[in-house]
Amino acid sequence: MYLQKLRDEKPLIHCITNIVVANFQANGLLALGASPVMADAVEEAADMAAVSSAVVLNIGTLKAVSVEAMCLAGERAAANGIPIILDPVGAGATSFRKAAVLSILEKVPVSLIRCNAGELAAIAGIDWQAKGVDAGDGEADLEQLALEVATRYSCLVAVTGVEDLVTDGKRVVRIAGGHSLMTRVTGVGCLLSAVVAAFVAVADDHKLEAAENALAIYKRAGEQAAALSTGPGDFAVNLLNALYAITEEDLL
Amino acid sequence: MYLQKLRDEKPLIHCITNIVVANFQANGLLALGASPVMADAVEEAADMAAVSSAVVLNIGTLKAVSVEAMCLAGERAAANGIPIILDPVGAGATSFRKAAVLSILEKVPVSLIRCNAGELAAIAGIDWQAKGVDAGDGEADLEQLALEVATRYSCLVAVTGVEDLVTDGKRVVRIAGGHSLMTRVTGVGCLLSAVVAAFVAVADDHKLEAAENALAIYKRAGEQAAALSTGPGDFAVNLLNALYAITEEDLL
Amino acid sequence: MYLQKLRDEKPLIHCITNIVVANFQANGLLALGASPVMADAVEEAADMAAVSSAVVLNIGTLKAVSVEAMCLAGERAAANGIPIILDPVGAGATSFRKAAVLSILEKVPVSLIRCNAGELAAIAGIDWQAKGVDAGDGEADLEQLALEVATRYSCLVAVTGVEDLVTDGKRVVRIAGGHSLMTRVTGVGCLLSAVVAAFVAVADDHKLEAAENALAIYKRAGEQAAALSTGPGDFAVNLLNALYAITEEDLL
Repeated sequence: MYLQKLRDEKPLIHCITNIVVANFQANGLLALGASPVMADAVEEAADMAAVSSAVVLNIGTLKAVSVEAMCLAGERAAANGIPIILDPVGAGATSFRKAAVLSILEKVPVSLIRCNAGELAAIAGIDWQAKGVDAGDGEADLEQLALEVATRYSCLVAVTGVEDLVTDGKRVVRIAGGHSLMTRVTGVGCLLSAVVAAFVAVADDHKLEAAENALAIYKRAGEQAAALSTGPGDFAVNLLNALYAITEEDLL
Repeated sequence: MYLQKLRDEKPLIHCITNIVVANFQANGLLALGASPVMADAVEEAADMAAVSSAVVLNIGTLKAVSVEAMCLAGERAAANGIPIILDPVGAGATSFRKAAVLSILEKVPVSLIRCNAGELAAIAGIDWQAKGVDAGDGEADLEQLALEVATRYSCLVAVTGVEDLVTDGKRVVRIAGGHSLMTRVTGVGCLLSAVVAAFVAVADDHKLEAAENALAIYKRAGEQAAALSTGPGDFAVNLLNALYAITEEDLL
Repeated sequence: MYLQKLRDEKPLIHCITNIVVANFQANGLLALGASPVMADAVEEAADMAAVSSAVVLNIGTLKAVSVEAMCLAGERAAANGIPIILDPVGAGATSFRKAAVLSILEKVPVSLIRCNAGELAAIAGIDWQAKGVDAGDGEADLEQLALEVATRYSCLVAVTGVEDLVTDGKRVVRIAGGHSLMTRVTGVGCLLSAVVAAFVAVADDHKLEAAENALAIYKRAGEQAAALSTGPGDFAVNLLNALYAITEEDLL
């Protein structure tokens, strides 16, 4: 639904992101048809947000000064009605990350949180055996947690994994598909957050539908890439190619 | 002309660059036959510049402290007669970037500016609809602007796009070729700046000829890579392979 | 010996690393079967180290604040009996790097130094013509230097190049193999340091054997990747695939 619109409008996606995935995220957005800009300096974060169509806040290699830049960008984006996507990478891994995420959520009206199960648990404040930036293991009703977090912060919550789930606090949509190689390439989740941002950027008030569309397209692209790949090396390459070539028809 | 000399001398190219393209830039220089070193700390920027054969200043994810490091590296390079290449990434995107670029140009005797049309317009001080770090759209006589900027800063100016143009303020050389996939991979322009630096590093006083040679080699490598690629994912891989294998004969 | 154990235990490897190789290092660890986390903020470096199975300190794009983060992470790791791997990238290139490496070695009980010949010479304090972050040229008895450095810092020293060498200050093991394309991709050495960390992480007191195993596996993966590659572009991709697929049987 929104893929062609994205390619026509080429939304500028402003990412404040980490040193590990910045290249992959930019390349994924370019491949898909969006226009990435990475700018994380406090000196320009707000100005760059003001001219963008969506802002992505990714805490992957967070420093105290990055939190400041994220809040500046987020506040300006909010003042301009620009959607803000939060990727709370490894939110449960250290107390610094958890405090930063909660601080951002307090100061910035985030439009959508894209996270894995462990990160959702950290935001919801429940116990979870996270492992670094991976999802980790835990027992919880993810749907219930997602609904609570969506309601608490008045935003969409997309929890991704073997099965994705996205909710606005009332409706819950589930998306199946994807491939296990998606867990063997760094930044596949981070890029997904940016892809969701690009879809939401062109969706006006239909943010839930746009997010669902983005998640489905991404899982399908992952399947297409995996079918051509022998390992994580060429899978990453093929995923970019798939994002470039995929059409809505590929979802049928 | 200069490609074999570059491969024989393996010039050390000191890049102060951004978190998005640092890996691709280093890999492109290595593939071509140059020796990259990325060092952006104020503590060592000048010392690293002093032992290098060319310095690349790239403002892609600029912070105030990076401007300081760039000026330190640039001043030391200038004192040692080492060429300095400036890549004013997204110069028109925010007032911080524009001010930083103009400040660097004031303090450092840059040898060559490698930019796109929108960045040139920003440096020249004319109106232009830049979009993040992309060239954007505008109406201007690029050749006239390039001549003016080259004269104003006593340097070479290389404006790249569908057709490249390089000038020393008097002569203007145009280079055709390349492929549209070069706009779908992040850092293709940034890598080009580093490639130009590696050619200029081995060219003594023939900097204009070396830059022209670099631009032509790069466009041809882009064509060779595109002929083997199905999308931006494998194009980036094939571009590195092409830079590794290309010879002067491939220009004939 | 340790490869299957690594894949079973999926050790969390905490890397404080540089902007050039962070992505490649994380992808290499993931491909191999380990779990990478990159966290270089002083605010969380110690906490992340405390929950990891090994810590990698890589000075590739060092800043003064990174040295602080490395010391915090190293001290916490040491207090918890977690192995610490130091990669003194370009240690001889500037006096800042050399001082930083010596300062880290003084404050942190490093378990293993993974370096090239020029970096070893810098740590040992002898003259060497290093070139940026490359090994450079020099005349020295590398084995003697490695033995001295291992004894001085009570750690393992792995010097890699055409032939690798690893020592605990008494025994010396040499590993042949590999391929010249490994010198044409940035971060191949940095990734190796992380791979060694992942092997050491699961080896308890058999660190020398684990390091030897890691070096041999890596050289073999390099050969396997090179056999499928036409240049450095696809070699990097194929190296990740090889790390994913390689088994102990491939060493026979």
